[in-house]
Amino acid sequence: MARWEPGARERIVVAALELFVEQGYDDTTVAQIAERAGLTKSTFFRHFRDKRELLVAGQETLSRLLAEGIAAAPAGASPLEAVAGGLRAASGAMGPLNRQLGPRLREAMATNAELQERDALKSVGMAAAMTAALVARGVPDPLAALAGELGVLAFKRGYAEWSSGDGEKDELATFTLAALDELRAASAGLG
Amino acid sequence: MARWEPGARERIVVAALELFVEQGYDDTTVAQIAERAGLTKSTFFRHFRDKRELLVAGQETLSRLLAEGIAAAPAGASPLEAVAGGLRAASGAMGPLNRQLGPRLREAMATNAELQERDALKSVGMAAAMTAALVARGVPDPLAALAGELGVLAFKRGYAEWSSGDGEKDELATFTLAALDELRAASAGLG
Repeated sequence: MARWEPGARERIVVAALELFVEQGYDDTTVAQIAERAGLTKSTFFRHFRDKRELLVAGQETLSRLLAEGIAAAPAGASPLEAVAGGLRAASGAMGPLNRQLGPRLREAMATNAELQERDALKSVGMAAAMTAALVARGVPDPLAALAGELGVLAFKRGYAEWSSGDGEKDELATFTLAALDELRAASAGLG
Repeated sequence: MARWEPGARERIVVAALELFVEQGYDDTTVAQIAERAGLTKSTFFRHFRDKRELLVAGQETLSRLLAEGIAAAPAGASPLEAVAGGLRAASGAMGPLNRQLGPRLREAMATNAELQERDALKSVGMAAAMTAALVARGVPDPLAALAGELGVLAFKRGYAEWSSGDGEKDELATFTLAALDELRAASAGLG
């Protein structure tokens, strides 16, 4: 077997999520994941330190893309316009595979406390990344935190709707940006 | 030793947090916590299933109080007025002990991934509890989620400031309600 497997990382992620759904996160071993992916255990360990690391890796990429998109927004952009830039950058990195994984991950999470905790940590990490990127643009503190939370809500709501739907044409960005618009409109009713 | 120890639960919590700060969460055992609290291990187990359970218990009380305060707000209250009711109910349950624990918990969390995860889960649980309580009042979906997130931000910001300060007179509610007002004012600048 070649030392470098093209697409190995993606195959590992898909195999792992399939197994988490089929038999639960706790009962799934690294050996089983590697076998399902058609790779050796040592190839697995070149990509991920352990099973848990699989869940961390995706969220770090997501937070980085959100922050980069916010940083790249035009100088005069409002906080929510900058957040929209972050959502566009992160959404653009998600393809049909990510869409298929949505329902599987929700199903696995429903019965697994560790996955629920990872998801909670993911939300907090996304909010922190967006808030820090907004502060770096000069957005003052409470406003940056608020805009960051709106960004998380928009991403999660958009992703949930996108990955539940059957339509094949729409991209994730369409859903996350629509969710952000909806939240912006709703904010007028806070009272 | 009596089968029922008045104040045992509170002594366990204080002892545990002291030990988490002194020697880390992972290296602290239930036996050590019981000894520091001056109780037997079996008394510990009458109050908490395990070490981890200690962290869950506080957050469930907090979420319940937030939801009850929202439910008890007057019929005509705006979403943020109802959230203010939740913050008042939850803040009112926190005394000098909770204030002292703030810096210790932050210190322990800084170096412990499990505590960070519990804290993330706590935030998500608080948001879910407030959002559900608002939906039960008839607040529509995206607005309820948004108001719930504002409530979490207000509680966390208020608690951080309260527990960092030296002043003895001010109650937590003063800080959480001020943070909510600040967030409400900031929301006008989202753009």
